[in-house]
Amino acid sequence: MNRQRLDPDSRLYRIRHSLSHVLAQAVMEIRPEAKLGYGPPIENGFYYDFDLHPPLAPEDLPRLEKIMRRIIGADQRFEREDVPAEELIERLRGDGAIYKTENAEEMRDNGQKVLSVYRNGPFSDMCEGPHVTSTKELPADAFKIDSLAGAYWRGSEENKMLQRVYGLAFENKTELKEFLAKRELAKERDHRKLGAELQIFTISDEVGRGLPLWMPNGTVLRDELEKLAKETEFQWGYQRVSTPHITKEGLFLKSGHLPYYAADMFPPMEGDEGNYYLKPMNCPLHHMIYKAIPRSYRDLPLRLAEYGTCYRYEQSGELSGLLRVRAMAMNDAHIYCAEEQTREEFASVMRLHSFYYDLFGIENYWVRLSLPDLAAAGKKFVGHPDVWARAEKLVIEAMEDSGIPFEAVRGEAAFYGPKIDMQLRNVIGREETVSTNQLDLIMSERFDLTYIGKDNERHRPQIIHRAPLGTHERFVAFLIEHYGGVFPTWLAPVQVRLIPVAPAFNAYVQGLRDVLRRGFVRAEVDDSGDSFGKKIRSGATSKVPNLFIVGQKEASDSAVSWKRHGAKAQITLPFDKAREMLQKEISERIDWRRDDGEP
Amino acid sequence: MNRQRLDPDSRLYRIRHSLSHVLAQAVMEIRPEAKLGYGPPIENGFYYDFDLHPPLAPEDLPRLEKIMRRIIGADQRFEREDVPAEELIERLRGDGAIYKTENAEEMRDNGQKVLSVYRNGPFSDMCEGPHVTSTKELPADAFKIDSLAGAYWRGSEENKMLQRVYGLAFENKTELKEFLAKRELAKERDHRKLGAELQIFTISDEVGRGLPLWMPNGTVLRDELEKLAKETEFQWGYQRVSTPHITKEGLFLKSGHLPYYAADMFPPMEGDEGNYYLKPMNCPLHHMIYKAIPRSYRDLPLRLAEYGTCYRYEQSGELSGLLRVRAMAMNDAHIYCAEEQTREEFASVMRLHSFYYDLFGIENYWVRLSLPDLAAAGKKFVGHPDVWARAEKLVIEAMEDSGIPFEAVRGEAAFYGPKIDMQLRNVIGREETVSTNQLDLIMSERFDLTYIGKDNERHRPQIIHRAPLGTHERFVAFLIEHYGGVFPTWLAPVQVRLIPVAPAFNAYVQGLRDVLRRGFVRAEVDDSGDSFGKKIRSGATSKVPNLFIVGQKEASDSAVSWKRHGAKAQITLPFDKAREMLQKEISERIDWRRDDGEP
Repeated sequence: MNRQRLDPDSRLYRIRHSLSHVLAQAVMEIRPEAKLGYGPPIENGFYYDFDLHPPLAPEDLPRLEKIMRRIIGADQRFEREDVPAEELIERLRGDGAIYKTENAEEMRDNGQKVLSVYRNGPFSDMCEGPHVTSTKELPADAFKIDSLAGAYWRGSEENKMLQRVYGLAFENKTELKEFLAKRELAKERDHRKLGAELQIFTISDEVGRGLPLWMPNGTVLRDELEKLAKETEFQWGYQRVSTPHITKEGLFLKSGHLPYYAADMFPPMEGDEGNYYLKPMNCPLHHMIYKAIPRSYRDLPLRLAEYGTCYRYEQSGELSGLLRVRAMAMNDAHIYCAEEQTREEFASVMRLHSFYYDLFGIENYWVRLSLPDLAAAGKKFVGHPDVWARAEKLVIEAMEDSGIPFEAVRGEAAFYGPKIDMQLRNVIGREETVSTNQLDLIMSERFDLTYIGKDNERHRPQIIHRAPLGTHERFVAFLIEHYGGVFPTWLAPVQVRLIPVAPAFNAYVQGLRDVLRRGFVRAEVDDSGDSFGKKIRSGATSKVPNLFIVGQKEASDSAVSWKRHGAKAQITLPFDKAREMLQKEISERIDWRRDDGEP
Repeated sequence: MNRQRLDPDSRLYRIRHSLSHVLAQAVMEIRPEAKLGYGPPIENGFYYDFDLHPPLAPEDLPRLEKIMRRIIGADQRFEREDVPAEELIERLRGDGAIYKTENAEEMRDNGQKVLSVYRNGPFSDMCEGPHVTSTKELPADAFKIDSLAGAYWRGSEENKMLQRVYGLAFENKTELKEFLAKRELAKERDHRKLGAELQIFTISDEVGRGLPLWMPNGTVLRDELEKLAKETEFQWGYQRVSTPHITKEGLFLKSGHLPYYAADMFPPMEGDEGNYYLKPMNCPLHHMIYKAIPRSYRDLPLRLAEYGTCYRYEQSGELSGLLRVRAMAMNDAHIYCAEEQTREEFASVMRLHSFYYDLFGIENYWVRLSLPDLAAAGKKFVGHPDVWARAEKLVIEAMEDSGIPFEAVRGEAAFYGPKIDMQLRNVIGREETVSTNQLDLIMSERFDLTYIGKDNERHRPQIIHRAPLGTHERFVAFLIEHYGGVFPTWLAPVQVRLIPVAPAFNAYVQGLRDVLRRGFVRAEVDDSGDSFGKKIRSGATSKVPNLFIVGQKEASDSAVSWKRHGAKAQITLPFDKAREMLQKEISERIDWRRDDGEP
């Protein structure tokens, strides 16, 4: 969700704030005994807290909405009255408005001599405003009383539990509709919900929070992403490495992660030769591989890639599904290059990002270039300002070379160099940093990395850190929601489900499955005892992208009827042709929804 | 090396023992001042310890051999004399034989009243025998004075350092020759030596001992093995999972690894929600995936596979190259099946072993079936003897089904069930347990694993643990030595090196490399400034299996001359044809040396 804060002078703020008064008025109408708590505007709407017994029930909400619409139609003007604090406190106490009284007393104690009251029709409420001029300005079709909840007075467990009524409110009907649709989509596509339904991952308290176990379907997603990365990185000139998940602490003292970063790391294992740590990052281990043999300018750029697992000891309360975890497999690579190669390498990484984003049809993103605040040299970042200035120029040129639009933000750089973050906004509106590209000016020095140049002298390589596919955990969470669980064929855990229309065709269909599987297609047969109709429905709910349906006609013609997920139509074609098309779609990673793939 | 212990009555024992006397006699001849220590027969030969100054130099060894041959030729008879202990001690002390005296005193103190002396020619030595009858029986062409070393008297650092002279000795010249050849091969093929030369892995003290970092060439080996396992296991009906490397301690308390196995595990990480451990085994995590959803008989057999990393906190002193490490990626899988499926599943795993062994041309192995000592029920293993008896029968039947010969050993079973170990003897003679297949009767109960049977009742699955390719670390060590670093094309880090005979062909050859790489062939060009001859030699030492040589004729004809590693001949063929053959060889995992592959 967007965490934007509304401007109190905005129209939307006044609408939401006024609607909370109208809600309170409506509640007082059906429950005159209710005592009022707070009633502020919030993101997407407003709420009001009430002390009432028995509490409101969900069935009351439509009735409240109806009364609110009547009040809106009544053209009640909002009028402000400024009242001396003591006088208002007396008045509120006299009305038995215990929460308002407490609130007014507190403001008086804080030195406010005059307090304001807003009045509309028969209702009045101590309030700072602002409001709309009249209830008539409130859009009667752009709000909704949404839900009920419990909330302690002033948020403290020691106080009484009040009932909170939530309302949604927008400037017009379309916006409300869009919000509701997006919220529904978010609920349906939530990767935790789909992750469980589609058996992608499971989290077990016995194993540990934030440590997902990938079930077979999820492991297919991981494996396919790794295969994609391996193939792509091979073509882009990377070499793969594989490094341990643990190291002795000296390595992270050298990198500077210890002791400063210790709170974010798992606690140490105290071995008899010193402490071991789970690695919070892969970098130092790649640096050790760089250092393992002498390097010359002929070896550069050296691009070392690994799906390396990093560990962060996030607070329990922060953990959530695949988005906040404690162990994450990162699409990591470090490019060691001569300074004169950095611009081209950095731009090439950006083109690699574009390549991946195109493949997945990711369009809704923006690119942030975080630059150092050069005035903060030696504080917020390490190294000489001249080096940074050169690096900054280099990265900006590389970004311009790549042709990808970006927004530069000063003062947000990593301590070791400028960085690019790709900010993806997914289909449900949440923005996440998914992938990064960073230039590192420091570690080469700290790890004493060198190469022999053409001049026969030792030089320091520059280092680019990059992770276009982010971590498996975050990227799979993103993809689940992006695709709503209906993955393109190449990525889908089950690529095709074969459905015999009657048990008589089971054996034939099992034969087709075996042919497909020999070609490494993830095919399965629904040979359950279910009816044909139920098999088709279950094919849809399981979100398998392709159904091959086989009845008498298909069996006689060595054909299948191919039905795409979500498509009404199906087309019948020879099985061999279908298999060939399917395999092409898989090997070329075609998304039939985007590439106008038949059928 | 073979750890067989020689029978003291054997001819070889007597030969080796007698040769140690002959060696001592030879040393006394050139160094009359030398004092004798111990001189026993050992594996592959014998040694004798001397106290002498200055020590013998390597150049002395041929001279000693020559003297020994003369003594052998002299037909000196070995004669035993039994002497009262006190008398012998007096005699030795008189001779100044301080070490022999100390030894004799100790034997007397241990109650030996009479000690024996063996005499041949001018030489005599306190000794228990036995010996050959005469030096003439010693094979003059089947021994060799091998090396010099330092050794503390009685192996204690507190004692004086003596000089040890090692000899090799066999019954005949052929055996000596074979031993020397095998030792030379072992030295050349040692995976630590080749691992460094071929840049397969590196071990860094800063990262930690026993935690290899896989360099690009080694990562190719890992990745190719994983690809092989994934493809094979897909065809054999496995599903892949991916589980964390760490878990909370409760899981390993449940499995019984803690506290009993704690000494072999890394120390805990003390988190705020209890201890975390690096997993010593993958099993419990797979069990949690089994448990994550309800299972029915229709899901069985469920085969969950993972290259899962296990951690063992081996003693520093035990660590060696890739063979003894602290983190190892295991070709693991657990098969959950109904008891009536176990026999077929177990046999199928054995067939899978055969499949892999055939692929790698592994012929020198034997299969050990470890069975429980049924009399030790409740002590050495858990569970009811009847269950074990049934399991034992089942496994034996499965082994018979598989057609693989095996040797049953009683009393060696795992505590949770009978197991199969594949004992590989590699080309340098070392025997290693590389892969296993085990039936588990216990964990299903401990982890409360169930499935709903056809009868609608809950049943416990049986579990098979298997790891045909063992761990990456051990299997790669084995393969390096097995292939002497010359891997079959599909596995080779660099599959083909293109060699232009002169710089004029560099650009053309780089184009061919690019074509190959687009087809995912790991191709590289030697476009260094080296001479053609040097390029060919460097192609050989780098152990790249295929060289494509391009000169004027090849360039004009769009051809290459293909030279296999170690082959004298090369054949010229159109590049497209060569590329096609190479790709077929890769995709079908053909070893040209075994499958009579052209060229």
